[in-house]
Amino acid sequence: MRNTPTDPVPLAQALIRCPSVTPADAGALGVMEQALTALGFTCHRLTFGETPNLYARRGTGGPHFCYAGHTDVVPTGPAEAWTDGPFDAVVRDGVLYGRGACDMKGGIAAFVAGLTDYLAANPNPPGSISLLITGDEEGPARDGTVKVLDWMAARGEIPDMALVGEPTSRAALGDLVKVGRRGSMTAWITLFGTQGHSAYPQRADNPIHRLVRVLHRLTAAPIDQGSQFFEATTLQVTGFDVGNPANNVIPGEARAMLNIRFNDLHTSASLTEHLHAALRREDARYEMRVDCSGESFLTRPGPFVDALKRAVLRATGQEPALDTGGGTSDARFIARFCPVAELGAVGSTMHKANEAAPVAELRDLAALYRMVLEEAFA
Amino acid sequence: MRNTPTDPVPLAQALIRCPSVTPADAGALGVMEQALTALGFTCHRLTFGETPNLYARRGTGGPHFCYAGHTDVVPTGPAEAWTDGPFDAVVRDGVLYGRGACDMKGGIAAFVAGLTDYLAANPNPPGSISLLITGDEEGPARDGTVKVLDWMAARGEIPDMALVGEPTSRAALGDLVKVGRRGSMTAWITLFGTQGHSAYPQRADNPIHRLVRVLHRLTAAPIDQGSQFFEATTLQVTGFDVGNPANNVIPGEARAMLNIRFNDLHTSASLTEHLHAALRREDARYEMRVDCSGESFLTRPGPFVDALKRAVLRATGQEPALDTGGGTSDARFIARFCPVAELGAVGSTMHKANEAAPVAELRDLAALYRMVLEEAFA
Ligand SMILES: [Zn+2]
Ligand SMILES: [Zn+2]
Repeated sequence: MRNTPTDPVPLAQALIRCPSVTPADAGALGVMEQALTALGFTCHRLTFGETPNLYARRGTGGPHFCYAGHTDVVPTGPAEAWTDGPFDAVVRDGVLYGRGACDMKGGIAAFVAGLTDYLAANPNPPGSISLLITGDEEGPARDGTVKVLDWMAARGEIPDMALVGEPTSRAALGDLVKVGRRGSMTAWITLFGTQGHSAYPQRADNPIHRLVRVLHRLTAAPIDQGSQFFEATTLQVTGFDVGNPANNVIPGEARAMLNIRFNDLHTSASLTEHLHAALRREDARYEMRVDCSGESFLTRPGPFVDALKRAVLRATGQEPALDTGGGTSDARFIARFCPVAELGAVGSTMHKANEAAPVAELRDLAALYRMVLEEAFA
Repeated sequence: MRNTPTDPVPLAQALIRCPSVTPADAGALGVMEQALTALGFTCHRLTFGETPNLYARRGTGGPHFCYAGHTDVVPTGPAEAWTDGPFDAVVRDGVLYGRGACDMKGGIAAFVAGLTDYLAANPNPPGSISLLITGDEEGPARDGTVKVLDWMAARGEIPDMALVGEPTSRAALGDLVKVGRRGSMTAWITLFGTQGHSAYPQRADNPIHRLVRVLHRLTAAPIDQGSQFFEATTLQVTGFDVGNPANNVIPGEARAMLNIRFNDLHTSASLTEHLHAALRREDARYEMRVDCSGESFLTRPGPFVDALKRAVLRATGQEPALDTGGGTSDARFIARFCPVAELGAVGSTMHKANEAAPVAELRDLAALYRMVLEEAFA
């Protein structure tokens, strides 16, 4: 027999009132530390570079369930676009407004509320629970989750399963669980030709024409048609620059930048070779630099995904869709270590002015997270 | 019975010693005015904008033969690249060195020398002779030949034939007469798409991809294969710029610049429509600005070209090739009014350090120009 469920709204408000725009912490992790210490967690404040992080664990046994999230938020944009102050955390007509309301201070508060209720009913869970909260998810993400995971690995604290609380729901809470993400890589290409006068093109070698051919080759047809769990890989040329002011001069080099979002049919290495192959057909000198901000990953159907599906079904009466779309998240780092999925609030206002989360949705999310813990340890 | 031919070298030296780098005159037109006044020419100093010009005519009857040229020169470049001072007009080992020696102060001096000899033998030619000398051929060419021609037209002094004394000869004096030039036009294109995030390309419309398609369309195949008197039209993309620093942002617009050198199968209007047609296939918003610095022109075989051919054959024993290659010259302005051709020194050192003209070649050119006058008035 449970008491009245814990309300996530006060904690969400306390977090929103810390203006923790990346890389600022503004007290947000302290709020978390206080809440988790009260629940019996051992807290570790971990600062890597300039980035503050919090790792908190309750229990030492297995299985080890980890909830991952971030307290940093994106900038507010122009203040006049907001009805209330972005950090005022005003509740009006049953809606909580503020930067981070859905991405993802509201989600973190909902997890702590659900956790509180779970622990009230299960003071000695059959396993341990941790929270990995970073202050650098919206920024370069170099000194956040990825560094905390290294620290955890060094201590032998790698989880057996992890839930990232990003606002993944599309139209209704729990309608979508992200079980993977596409990879993302960027390539910077410089193609060299021979400078000359446009009246005598036979004495020059126009690198723009060659680069246009290369990019036409790369964009004329889709790279694939998608795979079982992923949509099609996309390649977008996001830059093309020459910087030649003289209309009658054929320039000596041309540069392009392109970004690829790729599914599990590819790796950044196989796509790098794909780019080299398109470039080599020109028989011209070129340089290419590639940066992969995350390989694609997929948590295949199995016990952890099944537990999430059961929790969503109990909480909402509907099975969630399993999805792998959208941009990157810190789940890409966790996927190297254990099964990971993402499940959180409806994210329609994330990163926008008047970011908001209905109070009822936050309370439903708290209940859902409680059920996730129940099913994960079932 | 003629006396010893007039030597063009002293006048060439006097002109070279005026450092008339565009737009400076540095006394060059004064040297010309003095020489032509002595030959019975009526001189008009015509300044348009900042540009000094000289129009000199002897006689009023028809036919009216005009010699066109320029006294301005391109910059010297680094002084240390020159063996002598660029304006010293040193003669060494039978070669005259200096900026303008071949382009085209040497040519002008050769014409005046040949003209002197022609008038000595023909004090009352069956027609009139004029010189149109501008100080702005190497510059923007806005206030030079084109404005003098307007002034001449207003006075009813349009020539019946014109010879431009640019250094057109390739390997030997008189081996090449230019009877036309390709046109030149530049287009600046801005193509608009819809900005977006590279992770969600379906919500954006990438203007780089569209512009790559347009330019691929325009450069994949030659525009033509050349015509009877012209080489093939060439299109060179000389600029492509986006200026987007963010690798994960699909930009909202992309810009390209292209330069077309076109033969007599096209006009700037027909090519502008060709560009519009390639752009319209994208069904995207775009802006295009076009600037034509000269339409293509051709002086077809006829009495004037025949006179030039006879003069070259007499002077060199060889028929000249008729050619339409290379960049633009002021002949494009004259072509609107009368038959025009270009015949002058060997131009291999033009615009370079140690620009030079062999003294023997300048003397042969003077004799050739005398024969041109004889044949033109035959
Ligand atoms: Zn987030
Ligand atoms: Zn010239």
